[in-house]
Amino acid sequence: MKADPQALVFDAYGTLFDVHSVTRLADSLFPGRGAALSQAWRGKQLEYTWLRSLMGRYDDFNAVTADSLDWSLESLGLAAGARERDALMQAYRTLATFPEVRAALARLGARRTLAILSNGHPDMLDAVVDHNELRVHFGERVYSVHEAGVFKPDPRVYALACTGLELPAESIGFVSSNGWDAAGARSFGFAAWWVNRGRAPVERLGSPPDAVVGDLAQLADLLA
Amino acid sequence: MKADPQALVFDAYGTLFDVHSVTRLADSLFPGRGAALSQAWRGKQLEYTWLRSLMGRYDDFNAVTADSLDWSLESLGLAAGARERDALMQAYRTLATFPEVRAALARLGARRTLAILSNGHPDMLDAVVDHNELRVHFGERVYSVHEAGVFKPDPRVYALACTGLELPAESIGFVSSNGWDAAGARSFGFAAWWVNRGRAPVERLGSPPDAVVGDLAQLADLLA
Repeated sequence: MKADPQALVFDAYGTLFDVHSVTRLADSLFPGRGAALSQAWRGKQLEYTWLRSLMGRYDDFNAVTADSLDWSLESLGLAAGARERDALMQAYRTLATFPEVRAALARLGARRTLAILSNGHPDMLDAVVDHNELRVHFGERVYSVHEAGVFKPDPRVYALACTGLELPAESIGFVSSNGWDAAGARSFGFAAWWVNRGRAPVERLGSPPDAVVGDLAQLADLLA
Repeated sequence: MKADPQALVFDAYGTLFDVHSVTRLADSLFPGRGAALSQAWRGKQLEYTWLRSLMGRYDDFNAVTADSLDWSLESLGLAAGARERDALMQAYRTLATFPEVRAALARLGARRTLAILSNGHPDMLDAVVDHNELRVHFGERVYSVHEAGVFKPDPRVYALACTGLELPAESIGFVSSNGWDAAGARSFGFAAWWVNRGRAPVERLGSPPDAVVGDLAQLADLLA
């Protein structure tokens, strides 16, 4: 593990932005079912990114997110019209950050280049980064899998960060709250820190993270 | 859709063999937690096959099944020793068929070649096929992804059936209870029947099945 990488690359959804912040909206649309819908939606969304990648049938994250919402609504027996559906999709563009993110990015970025590498479509990413006023930390270094035409954890995705940052893998540290994403990044050749927000067991995928932290504030302490 | 394919290729786990038949054993080892363990195990097992395939880190289905068991036990806070772990792994070699399978295979095989194409390691597949005395239907036509070094739904897996059966894709019908597996087979070029045992919504993956049936008896009616 490179103890002090030149650049830190962050996953977006679940790491910087709380995807379950859609739960509140979902619960106002479908009282008592918001948590179930949010969880089903997120699970199916990831599943579709993996399956489409393996099938060689990439479609962008907007489409996959809409498809997984439709599946989840049907699965839970929830009737949604165009208005509810649009509101839920729009919520993905205005996700909130986790509470510690802003201060942690300021500390982590003081001596390093910061970037984002995400499954999100470039439009979705720009929207949520600007909504949260995080452009000051990331500039134009917001990389989307869209350019590779395949989703994480395909190694071609992680290579986009090397190309964009003009750095070799060994100079890059990758940060994700998704254990499988950290494993994919580690397998590619990055140092990888897993932000284990949900106190989950470590994934058994043959490439464990270099370290595990509880949130981004702990990562800032570790790299101080 | 080819209405009358020359060969029918079956998925194994969940289609012919009931993976939740391990629930009974799990429940005897961990009273009241058998269903939760069985579901977590199966979900994580599939997830690991997709992730390892995308990462280019294939490991055989025995290893993935053991890894996903360990993750699931830890996730549920269940303490298992070597004895419990071995018993659960062994259960995968002696899974029961769904009740209608035997009679349906006899009807479906009367005029067609039958085969299996599975994520399972060849040893696991041979064990469960022989345990259920299904060799009479499948002969040596039990194909494992192991030869391709990648899991479903990578198209290289479905191509193994064409090679083994010496038939083009358009002469083959594929049968799976996993909606994503039917989608992968359809995307590859097979006719695909989805055995929707769980009354789930159709997967939104861009290649819907040619038809949906409730079990293999209904499929035999459809193809009679």
